[in-house]
This record gives sequence, C-alpha cells and structure tokens, in this order.
Amino acid sequence: MASRDGFSWTEEDGLKPGVPCIGAIQPPSNLTSAHDVTYDVIVAGAGYCGLTAARDAAVAGLKVLLLEGRDRIGGRSWSSNIGGYPFEMGGTWVFWGQPNVWREIMRYQMQDELEVSYDFSRGINEYHISNGRTTQRFTHDEEDKIVESGLRKLVNVDGAYGKNVIPFSHTSKFSSEAIKLDSMSVADRLAEIQDSLTPNERLAVESFVLLCSGGTLETTSVFEFLHWWALCAYSYEGCIDYLVKYKFRGGQSSFAIRFFQEALATGNLTYAFNSPITTVRNTTAGVEVTTRQAQRFKARRMISAIPLNVLNNVTFDPPLPQGKQAAASIGHVNQCVKVHAEVRDRDLRSYTGISYPHNGLFYALGDGETPSGNTHIVAFGGQHNHFEPDEDIEVTKKALQGLTPMNIKRIVFHNWSKDEFAKGAWFFPGPGLLSNHLNDMRACHGKVFFASSDWALGWRSFIDGAIEEGTRAALAVRNDLGRGEHVPMRSKLA
Amino acid sequence: MASRDGFSWTEEDGLKPGVPCIGAIQPPSNLTSAHDVTYDVIVAGAGYCGLTAARDAAVAGLKVLLLEGRDRIGGRSWSSNIGGYPFEMGGTWVFWGQPNVWREIMRYQMQDELEVSYDFSRGINEYHISNGRTTQRFTHDEEDKIVESGLRKLVNVDGAYGKNVIPFSHTSKFSSEAIKLDSMSVADRLAEIQDSLTPNERLAVESFVLLCSGGTLETTSVFEFLHWWALCAYSYEGCIDYLVKYKFRGGQSSFAIRFFQEALATGNLTYAFNSPITTVRNTTAGVEVTTRQAQRFKARRMISAIPLNVLNNVTFDPPLPQGKQAAASIGHVNQCVKVHAEVRDRDLRSYTGISYPHNGLFYALGDGETPSGNTHIVAFGGQHNHFEPDEDIEVTKKALQGLTPMNIKRIVFHNWSKDEFAKGAWFFPGPGLLSNHLNDMRACHGKVFFASSDWALGWRSFIDGAIEEGTRAALAVRNDLGRGEHVPMRSKLA
Repeated sequence: MASRDGFSWTEEDGLKPGVPCIGAIQPPSNLTSAHDVTYDVIVAGAGYCGLTAARDAAVAGLKVLLLEGRDRIGGRSWSSNIGGYPFEMGGTWVFWGQPNVWREIMRYQMQDELEVSYDFSRGINEYHISNGRTTQRFTHDEEDKIVESGLRKLVNVDGAYGKNVIPFSHTSKFSSEAIKLDSMSVADRLAEIQDSLTPNERLAVESFVLLCSGGTLETTSVFEFLHWWALCAYSYEGCIDYLVKYKFRGGQSSFAIRFFQEALATGNLTYAFNSPITTVRNTTAGVEVTTRQAQRFKARRMISAIPLNVLNNVTFDPPLPQGKQAAASIGHVNQCVKVHAEVRDRDLRSYTGISYPHNGLFYALGDGETPSGNTHIVAFGGQHNHFEPDEDIEVTKKALQGLTPMNIKRIVFHNWSKDEFAKGAWFFPGPGLLSNHLNDMRACHGKVFFASSDWALGWRSFIDGAIEEGTRAALAVRNDLGRGEHVPMRSKLA
Repeated sequence: MASRDGFSWTEEDGLKPGVPCIGAIQPPSNLTSAHDVTYDVIVAGAGYCGLTAARDAAVAGLKVLLLEGRDRIGGRSWSSNIGGYPFEMGGTWVFWGQPNVWREIMRYQMQDELEVSYDFSRGINEYHISNGRTTQRFTHDEEDKIVESGLRKLVNVDGAYGKNVIPFSHTSKFSSEAIKLDSMSVADRLAEIQDSLTPNERLAVESFVLLCSGGTLETTSVFEFLHWWALCAYSYEGCIDYLVKYKFRGGQSSFAIRFFQEALATGNLTYAFNSPITTVRNTTAGVEVTTRQAQRFKARRMISAIPLNVLNNVTFDPPLPQGKQAAASIGHVNQCVKVHAEVRDRDLRSYTGISYPHNGLFYALGDGETPSGNTHIVAFGGQHNHFEPDEDIEVTKKALQGLTPMNIKRIVFHNWSKDEFAKGAWFFPGPGLLSNHLNDMRACHGKVFFASSDWALGWRSFIDGAIEEGTRAALAVRNDLGRGEHVPMRSKLA
C-alpha cells in the first residue's frame, strides 16, 4: 500500500512523490450504489480525531459515513515504512501522561510496542550549537543545563515558573493573566528577559520555542507556549518526556489503523477516501454534504474534523458564524518543515544540534537506526527561512548539511505547507487567537459538531487532543440523537 | 438516597451505620420476571472497573447484566454528601496525568468540577511531627524538604532514583532488577539506608510509605512503592500532584454515576444491587451465575470485577487455576483506616501532620471547609496499631486527638477491613505477589474475564487502573464474541 502523500529521495531514484503507508486503505471506499441512505452521522476527516469519532459512533451503533480527502488515514500523523523502518511524517511521540492517547494505547494493548527515540550512548554523543559562524560542542548534560536554564527564565512570568498563571492546563476558562499573556508574542517576552539570557541560552530557547510553534518568535503566543510547559509538568525534563520520548516501533499508522479496523468491524462504518468535502448544508432534517466529485450524502448529524487552516475551503450553508469564520481566516501559524535523513554516519545516532538562526533546518536529533545500520536523523525547520523541501532537493540537502556534515542515503518528508488538507503542521496559535476564538472554534453550527486537536482543551495540537475531541464529538452526537446519557450535553459542547 | 455502607457520628446522634449517597441506586434492580434470558455478558461488581466494563459493553450493543453485592455503585471509591459537603469514603484524588480517569473526566466534561484539596494559606499553616513524646512544628516548605529528602534516599536503589529499574511504568514485563526489588520489603530497604536518614526523615518516610500501602513496613513491596514513585514522575512533587491534589466538588459518586447513567441510557443494561455472587459455573454455552438469594443468571461471557481479597469467596466450577487461587489466598495487605472529622477549629484548614509510630491514625491533613465553615480533616491509619473505627468511637476520637487537638463535631468513615466485599482498601501487594502472580491475576478462566484495578498495569490500585481494566475487559469480551476488532484479542488478555 502506498499514499500519494509524502516524498522520498535517493541518489538512484531522485525525488519521488508518494511513499509506502499501511494507512492507505484498500479498497478506498466501501460505498455501495444505495446512495439514498441517510446516515446517523457523517464524519469529515480521518485523522485521529475523525477516526476516534467514527469509531466511537460506529461502536455505539450509529450508522457512520467517514469522508476523507486523502487516500489514507492519520491526517497530520502518519508513518511510511521504508525498508522495514518507519519514518514519521508528522505527529510522532507519545507519553503515558497524555491521557487520551495513553488510554487508547492501553486499550489496544500496544504499550510494549513503544521505543525510546534517543539513545545517548554512541559515537558523536554531543549537542552542537551552530550560529552560522562557529559550531560549539557540548555534552547532552550540558545541553540540558543550557536549555533548561534558558527555558526557566522564559516561562517564569509569575515567579512560579508558570504555575500561577496556568494552574490547571485542561480548561477553556482562562484567567485574566492568561489572557494578557495570550496577547504577547514570545518575541515580546524575550525582549523582557534579554539581559538575563546568555548567548547560548538565547539560541537554545529561541530554537526550542520555534520547534514547538513552527512559526516565528513574533507569531508565537506566549500563553500557548506556557500551556505546553504546563502540560509538560512545568519542567524541562517533562518537555523531553512528553514531547520526544516514546514512539511506535511500527510507526503511527500502526496505531491509527486500529481505530479504523475497530470501526469497520462493527459493520456500521461506510467510508470513502479521495472524497474532499466542498459544501455542507444544514437542513431541517440534518445535513447534506457534497464532495469534490459532486457526490451528495445525507446524515442526521455531522462531525467536522477539518483542521482550522482549511475550514474556510468548505462552503457552509448557512454560513459559519462570524467568530468561527474569523478564527479560520486568522488560522494558526505552524509551517514546520520536518525532514528525515537516512545517513551512513553511524556516529550520528547520539547527535542533537541546532543551526540557528541562519539555516533552513534549525534543529535535528538522531532518532533511530535503520535495519541496514544507518542512522536516522530527523530535522525541523519553521517559518523563518522557510523553504519547500520538494521544490529543490539540493536546497533540502544543503539545509541538512547545514546542521552537521552527513552522508545522506535517503530523504523522506511531507510538505505540510503545501498540503491542501492541512495548510500547515500541528496547530500553534499566534497572539490573541485562543483568547478571542477558542470558544468560537469549539461551538456547534446547526447540526454540525466541530472537533479537532486544534481546539482541544488539554493536549491541544497533539494526537492526544485529537482523540480528546473525537471522543467529545461522538458522545455529543449520541446525546443529541437521544442515544446517549439523559443529560443535555449539546449545550456543553458549545 | 442512602447506603447501608459507612458510619457517621455526632454528639447528638451517636454512631450510626449508613450514610447518604447519590450512588445508592433506586430502584435497586430493573430485573423483570423474564429470568430465562441469556445475557451477552454478566459484569460482577459495580466499582469503577465494573461500571466501565458494563458501560462500554452496553454502549457497544451487548446485553449486559450488572450484579453488585452492595446497595450502591463505586466499590472502593464513593462519597457521602452530608450537609452539602462530600466526604470521600475511599478513593478520592485524581490528576490529569492519570490517563484513563482523565479521559473520562474530559469525556463527561467534568474538568471544571474539580478543586484542590489542600489550602496552605490559613491558620495553623504547619506540618507537625509527633513521635509520642514531643511534637515538632514545621512550615510546609520544611515538610516538603524533609519528606522529599527522605524519599529520594529510599527510592535511589539504582543511582537514578528508580528510573533505571522501572524505566516504563505501564507493563507486565518486569526486569530482573524489578523482580529482585519485589522480593524486598520496605523494612529491608530501610535497613540498607538507615544510617543516611535523619530521625525526622525516617518518621516522614515511614509514614509516607504506610500511607501508600496501608500495610506494615514488612509487608510493603519495595517494587510496588517504586512503581507508584515512577507513576508519579519519579518525584516528590509528582507524588503530591498525582496522589492528593484534585478531588471532585461533588464527590466521587458524582463521577461514578455518569458511567452508570450512560450505560442505563443505552437500554442494554439490566442491573441488580444487593446481589452478591456465590457461584460461577463455566458451561459449554457460557456461564451460569448464582447469587446469595439463589437467583440464577446465564450469559455468554462474564467479567469478574471482584477484588482480589474476596475472590475466593466465590465458588468457581471448574475451580480457578492454582495461580489465581494462590494470589487470592495471599491477598493484598492494605488495611487502611480512613477517618473524616468535621472540626470546629477553623485554624486547622492548613494543617498536615504525622503522629507515628504510636498513634492509631498516623497521618492527617486539612482537606476542605464545610458549608458551615468548619474544617474537614482526613486522617489515615494502617496495619500497625490497627483498630476498627466503628467498634469504640472513643478509641477513634482518641486516635484523631492523637494527631492534634481538635474540637470534633462529626466523624465519618467506612471500615474497609470489615467490608465483606472488599476485605481491605486499595490494592497494595506484599513482597513477591506481583512478580509471582500478576499474570495469574490477569488471566481468563474459561468464559470469565478478570478485571480489577488490583492487577492493572499502569495506575494499579487507583481509580485509573479500575477504568483501565474495565476498558480492557469490555473490549476483550466484544472481540471474543466476534463483535469487535478482527484480531485475536483473547490471548492478549491472558
């Protein structure tokens, strides 16, 4: 199985679109000719949010139609297995303190199918800071000290390292202090503390923040960065554990497919890939949805798991409320460029480094060892020095070499900025978006329920947030159809 | 609504059995006379594990019969609301890093219904250490330093504060080092480090360990204590957050009842309280279950959520495998005595203290303020100096006064040691039980699936572990009945 998504490059084959993926479902649809059926719920989008919603609804006995624009499941989290080794094209890491994702891992009994990404025991066991003129080399212990010290200065907005302004990280009820911080950019905050940061702390902190936001320092909300920090137990050690520690040996698609298979096994799931939605009409009876191929489907309710940055691509009738439209027009700022390199340098397994602010890719780490013994390097770029990795592979290679010299055998990536169904990577808000529009993003519109990691309350932007939201939406639809609890959940969704 | 369980005492009314509880379900059964039905699954036990299993199975369309010996839901976690204030009779605290419980809190959108237990801002804002001869007074910052310093000495079995021996806290695959530590008691470990502990550290650490295990130092497995420590992010701060921070404003029963209501709303749930199971017979077609009232029920499968310490009260035909019987005979060691006092001393809101080893209750903290402005103190005793709080209320009062002088208005408690359906509080293993029998406890027996927090992999002993296990069992039964995923899950349950 292969997806149209993603690119791979080798010296022999050059740059080729499309990569192998177990999440590319065959057959691509199980629709029958009986098009006159009214489904209980149409779920738009087969990322983790849509998959969770479709699975939960199908398991609960609702007749579900899952529509997906792509040829695969997983949305912004999917893996390509090349030569027996998984490359994570988007969302990758999980941790047991992420409640929704961990609940699913335990439920599918996949807890022993995880491995630790980094291995600080071999070869060039170093952290490099390249600023375009010189490269300094540090031990990983020194790395920890530099990054932690810098981060603690950044997040100490309240004398309590963020604990006072965000005491509770899973709510939409923001304190006035939190709202104020959401109006600030990280650039603003750095201006406040610039005299206290050493030059290396400044480089390390800026690149860490940009690694989280995929934007620029000016477009990164201080509040949301603090929200991540709060989720990571208000500590640098927590950031490492939660953000980059465990990944699936079989890749994210080996996890996502469990949701799809479970939904399918109920007999309640109809699905169609390659079916982007163009219009959604609220009717008195429910919703009518049209796809790009002019197929029309009817359902009593709809769950839109369409990401914020592409929500305005769909025409809603009646139009979406102003606040939701405004949020979609503003969008989020993450234009992360994630590039995998399989390199022949076995010594790089324990390498981490930043090459900032001059280089196209500003952060990389040794992320694994391929079956042939090569090293897997994963590298990240953002909005500053942004480039399209598929347009000129020599530029991409130069950005990799600008991190540290490497003997590249293979390059694998997905260009999220050009992805018509995402227009960006994981959600990260600019200043003001959350305090002005979080509730707008979460609100229903007629019989359409909106669910996305982009507006989750807890691990917003993460796979965990996607599952949180898919869970919420499926239960809300069940309740709205009178199949769930005898409590008024609809108003609570808004 | 009131339950037979629990006791309350006031000067005016004396000691009275039974307390108000919204988890006491009316009517106590919705059984009809059509007794010849064969259910898809009988769930035995309506604690969080059984409730989760029953709910998930009912939502998935299985015909479920839930049998419970008590008159209420919640098992070892339930609350009594007295005068508008909830007293937690058993399991109390939750945290967002507990994956299963937090997933449910977000799913039911109860995240804003939590409050922080402690409030270190008022009155006698102190930590007391009473050793029977003197009482020393400390600030809470000093308390943190004493307990943390002592704990770090205790858990540093590997030079890495437990991270090397338990790098991953959600698995049944124990390393040889872990198995070795499971053969040791905390008394053994204390003997190794006794020269490094200050007298106050020793008192603080011993009482902390006993607060976790409800046993004695000799009957507390070092491995399991380290497992708790690992779950709490290997830190004292994590212990506070995970173990005692957030509780429900409406009490645990306000959470548990959501599971029951959701299951009931499916129309697939039949239930009967006051119906203890006496025998379970595996047949070729399924299971036949008999209750103490000699009612007989048939089902295709059964989920036993019966706790370890009372599993041998039920007669299985054919008998349970030797390993499971042995585990149940050994049992767990937790005989925690938890006593609530509503006291007129408003100054005690910010009090914490230990009175150890001489006193009947060795640990207490200010846990809230009642609507009438009184202070709520919660106190804990264990296996050493064990007493039955219902037998002589003067002894109970003396144990409370032995912590710190208090003007007692009301006492509320549940005697878990005398509870015929629990025979103890939350699970805590003595040395050897887990390494010898964890897989025995988790294994199926014919068509009976065994689920309990007592043998969860992650937050074993916690509400989270109960939900983990109920989730696992419901999915396993669905798969076994061919309703779930097309994968062989049965073997994975074993």
